[in-house]
This record gives sequence, structure tokens and C-alpha cells, in this order.
Amino acid sequence: MEQMRPGYQVRSISLYGYEQAKALVLSSHGEPKDVLKLHGHSISPPHGDRVNIRFLASPINPADINQIQGVYPTKPSWTTELGTADRIAVGGNEGVAEVISKGSGVTGIEKGDWVIMKTQGFGTWRTHAQTTADKLIPIKNRVGLTPKQVGTISVNPCTAYRMLKDFVDLQPGEWFIQNGANSGVGRAAIQLARLWGIKSLNIIRKRDSEEATQTMIAELKSLGADAVITEDDLNSRDKMQTILNDGRDKLRLALNCVGGPQVNSMAKHLAPGSYVVTYGAMSKQPVNLPMGLLIFKDIRFSGFWVSRWKTPEDKMACVEEILDLIRQGKFKDVPSQEIPFKHDSSEKTLVAAVQGTLDGFRSGKGIFTFDE
Amino acid sequence: MEQMRPGYQVRSISLYGYEQAKALVLSSHGEPKDVLKLHGHSISPPHGDRVNIRFLASPINPADINQIQGVYPTKPSWTTELGTADRIAVGGNEGVAEVISKGSGVTGIEKGDWVIMKTQGFGTWRTHAQTTADKLIPIKNRVGLTPKQVGTISVNPCTAYRMLKDFVDLQPGEWFIQNGANSGVGRAAIQLARLWGIKSLNIIRKRDSEEATQTMIAELKSLGADAVITEDDLNSRDKMQTILNDGRDKLRLALNCVGGPQVNSMAKHLAPGSYVVTYGAMSKQPVNLPMGLLIFKDIRFSGFWVSRWKTPEDKMACVEEILDLIRQGKFKDVPSQEIPFKHDSSEKTLVAAVQGTLDGFRSGKGIFTFDE
Repeated sequence: MEQMRPGYQVRSISLYGYEQAKALVLSSHGEPKDVLKLHGHSISPPHGDRVNIRFLASPINPADINQIQGVYPTKPSWTTELGTADRIAVGGNEGVAEVISKGSGVTGIEKGDWVIMKTQGFGTWRTHAQTTADKLIPIKNRVGLTPKQVGTISVNPCTAYRMLKDFVDLQPGEWFIQNGANSGVGRAAIQLARLWGIKSLNIIRKRDSEEATQTMIAELKSLGADAVITEDDLNSRDKMQTILNDGRDKLRLALNCVGGPQVNSMAKHLAPGSYVVTYGAMSKQPVNLPMGLLIFKDIRFSGFWVSRWKTPEDKMACVEEILDLIRQGKFKDVPSQEIPFKHDSSEKTLVAAVQGTLDGFRSGKGIFTFDE
Repeated sequence: MEQMRPGYQVRSISLYGYEQAKALVLSSHGEPKDVLKLHGHSISPPHGDRVNIRFLASPINPADINQIQGVYPTKPSWTTELGTADRIAVGGNEGVAEVISKGSGVTGIEKGDWVIMKTQGFGTWRTHAQTTADKLIPIKNRVGLTPKQVGTISVNPCTAYRMLKDFVDLQPGEWFIQNGANSGVGRAAIQLARLWGIKSLNIIRKRDSEEATQTMIAELKSLGADAVITEDDLNSRDKMQTILNDGRDKLRLALNCVGGPQVNSMAKHLAPGSYVVTYGAMSKQPVNLPMGLLIFKDIRFSGFWVSRWKTPEDKMACVEEILDLIRQGKFKDVPSQEIPFKHDSSEKTLVAAVQGTLDGFRSGKGIFTFDE
């Protein structure tokens, strides 16, 4: 039975029930600009336990690029089911799609439902896919949500959510510190912390001008950041003491996506027994384990990878909690740039959008959006 | 009431109940050879809650040297109670002493009891001390124990004990890996693991000759080491796979007291979710946090410091359990070199013994032993 689907309707090219799909695919690892191709194929009507979906929004995450380059632990899902003799794989891991048809054996997911991917490696940079229901998480209530919000929920906001919850039992009024505060995860962490009564001490890179730095500080404060500092401030004991209530407030958690000597500077301000949680290494600079802090202050260094869920139910619960906050207007989207992925989009344009993520010139997260 | 004290009797110089004490002291931080002096003073009969003790055996641990240098977090206990106008402190943190007299208000400790120190900073490189009972842990049953065994129990064996217990719940048949396997802690870890049915994979430095390497391997195997390898072997996947039952056995714990790139080589062989526990940095080489292992394999880097006990009772329980193993003949002493600390020992000899620990030319742990 077809549900109401406000705003979004199936308008894909469909011939006798066959969907004409386009996908950004690779047949070997390498730089996106060298290995990504636009591939057309048709998808048959779904039988049995099969489900046909069409994508609504699929972000380009840095990890997607690393996966294409072959330097990511989760490999693309190679297949010959997309009409090629040799195996290929579809790029992209995150996204939201709409169920457009399903086999008679499928229960729990209905035509018109929005779905996100249960695990990494699905291949989300495509207009359509045929899959099985067990690979999908249905979003049961999508009222008040946009495809862009749902399509970007499972990586950045879930990363922030779990890093704030899984390592230290922070109490309302307590602080955490993070670098890369302007990143998608950083912004999510600021907002979740604020909602939970936890204070955030945010480190940003100095911008080219003082004005640009102040603009960034104001932007993060508008999201709920309690303090925003530049890297230099980290080394000012006075400045840090002032922020931390003359040293009476303790830092027990540091989130790191940058790397380099800054991590040690962060760690120095932590209370004994605290955690430094690393989820990225954007600066590509190494981090020296600070032996003294490790041994005598019991500072613990852990990593976080959002693909590591105990159960799919944990992921669903986290996603649902954050979607609720979005529905209530309590959680702002990260800045993004939509990249239309149409049936007549050129390979050159689409591939350039992926490659551009690497070059870092985009003013927000790149998100493929598809024909309505 | 005086207990039987087999083998050891009070024979210190005592005039009208005053003990003539000698102590290795410092009045400022620096190299042991520059700042350590031999200081003589007298100790009055104990009144009220005071206890007079005479030392039996006090080891020279590397941490003691760092403390003298001023680069250790636990500072020496500065005092003017030893008959000097300016504050001085007695070197040494570990040791065993015998109670020779006590004030009328002291309960729970009797004349003749052996005692160890409850916390760091006591100052154990001295013939006698006056203190209060709350700073001491009595060894209630010393039958079958030597002063050297009791005087070296609370640092190295307790470190090994807790590192094997506190981070990973290793089951009988499971492995751990450690570097610096020939150290006091390393040897204790091999023996405790063997007694608990846990297998040890031990890394040693290559010796100058193949024969010397083989001798060291044989020695550690005689303690119960299941496998002993050199640093080079760490990088041989084949060799490691063979040791670990063709890769079917998992490593979930690595103990590190060396540092340098070797730590990353160790970490590569660990199963997801494992711990690398650092308790020393003998090579003085930095360790780069391996980002990939941290994030994608959830390898956790922690530190261990034996001075961090939850309660004194925890320390007592650990000491008692290991002493029991020693009494049962199940736990061998580490190689050591006794350095007699007599009333007529020269300052030069005693200071040289401390400084010599730094130079690393000693063929075993240096232990001050005192007049019987």
C-alpha cells in the first residue's frame, strides 16, 4: 500500500517496470578522477526478498575517497550484477533512499519508506539499486525531515553522539575539549553536548584574517559552543585556566580528528584518568604518545570508528534519537553543497565533485541529490 | 612481645635507646653523584604513635634515580627532622624494614615485624627511620621469605601482576606479548602468567653474540616463557603466525617498557579491541600513535604506574598473593647484586652504586642490604 510521500515522488525513467539506473563506479582502486566512471544499467522488478530503491541524497565523505583509493579497511562491494563482465563497485557509503517497489516476500519495509544503509560498503552514489531488506534500516517517521538530513545522519552525528557517550560518563556541567571543531562531527558534538548540558571547549585553526576567525568563533557559538579557542590558546595556561573556572572545572574527554603536536597540548590539560579519542588524522601529522601523561596521569588513547556498532539496533537507536532532535528543530544541519546527480549529469561533473572533496575547496559537505 | 626473628637480629648501634642512623640524602635535585650525601643522625626512642625501624633490604629502582633528578611525579619527602637546618630528603622508595621499638599507642604492628612502605616517597636508603604505623604495611608471616624478596615485592612483581589483571580478562591458554622481557617486571610477568595458565610471547634485544642471545632465551624459558623472540622476529609474519598456532591464537594484551617503533610492530599483531599498556620508556625513543590501528582496529593505548592503587588494601592483597607464591617456591627472584650498606660504608661507594644503576652496567638489580 502506497503511503503519502510529501514532496518527493518517483519520477525515474521506468520501462515495463525496469528502472534505468546510473551509478558512479570503480573497477580498481586509485584516485577518484582516474578510476571513477559513470555506468548505466537497468534494474529488473524485484521478486521474493528483493527491494528496489531510488536514492534521494548521498553525501561524499572523506572515508569514501579513502575507500576508492584502497586505503580504507572497508572495501567497496565488488559485483558483476550490474551488467558488466568484470566486477565493479559503486562508490559511496552513506545516503538515504526511497523504496519504490518490493518483492512479495519482503516484510517490515513498505513502498514509499525512506531507508538508510545498515552497514558500510553499500554503494550510495547511484540513482537506483536493487537489494534485500536486511541491508536497510527504514526511517519509520520522516515527517519534518529532509533527505539531506536523513542522508547524512549515520556518519557524522552518530560519531559525535557515541564519542560523547561511550568513553566517559560526562555529567551536566562537565566539559569536553575537541579539535577540528568546525568539522561535521565537531558541529554535531557541540550541539549534542549543549542539549545534554555538557560544555564544549572547541579548538579551531586560525583563519587568514582575524575577522574570519571571529566569524567562525561566532558561528560555533551560535551552535552552542561554550568556548572557542585557536591552537595557540591551547598553550596559554592562563587562558585555559580562565575558561575552566580558574582550573576548578576538569576536562575528562578530548576528541581528536587533527593529529600532530596539538594532541599532546590537549592531553596536558586533561584530568588524571581521562580519554583522548581519535577519529581522524586530518593534518596527516603523527602524534607522539606522551609517555609521562600515559604512565603517571593515566591518560588513555583510544580510537573511534563509527562503522563499529555492537548491533544494528544500537545504530537504529542512535539514528532515531538524533532524528528526533532534528524534528524538534534542536539540531542544525552542517553547511553543505548540493551536487545534482541527474540522469543526464555528465561523468566529468560527478567525478569532479568527488575529487573536489579531496582538494578541500568546498565550503561545506558535498551531497549528491537526485531527481525528484 | 618480641617474636622469633630467624636469621635477622637487631645489632644496630644503640646508645641509651637512641639509634645512630645513616642515610643517603639529597638537599636538591640533580644527578645522584652530584647531590647524594651520606648523612648521620640519631633517632630517639619512639613515643605515642611512633615506630622505630631498621632497614633490611632496599632496592635501587630506576624510578628512584628519576626522583632524585627531579623528573619523577612523586617528589622526595623533604624534612628538617633528621637534624639539619635546611630540608633534606632520603632517597629510595621501596624496601623492607624490621620494627625495633614502638610507642605505647601503636597497635597492629609489633616489635620484630617486617614492614614494607604503604606509599612512595618514604626514603628507604637508610639504616634506620622513625615513622608512624600508618605509613607501614606489616608482613604478617615472613617464614620462608628473605629480606631481598620482601624488599623488592611492591614495585616489579606488583606491576606485572596488575598489568596482567587490570586491562584484559585473559583466560588460561590465551597469550600476551611483552618487550623488555628480561627486566624485573618482564620476568615477574612470565612467571605469574605461567602460574595462571597464560602464555607469554617475549621480546628481547639481540645480544652481542648468538650464544648470548640463546642463553637469555633459555633463561627466560626456564622461568616459564612460552616463546622468546628478538625484535627482528616481530616483523616476520610467518614466525609470528607459527608461534600463534597458525594465527588461530589471538594476542589481546601487549606490555611495553621500551618504546620506539617496536611498539607499533607489536600493536600490529594484536586482535581488535586489544590494549597496549606502557609502563616504561627505556629506549627513550618516541612512540607514534598508529592512527589506523587506533581507529579501525580499536587498539587502546594505556599507561600503568604501580603507585596508583585504589586502596592500600589492594596493595596488601597483591603483595600477600605474590609472597604466597614465593613461600611455595613458585616464584623466582630476579638476578640482583647486593650492595652492603654498613655503618662504616663510605659515601663514595654508596653513591656510586646509585649512579651505577643509571649507567646500566650492573648484571642485576642493585639492592642495599644492611647490617644484621
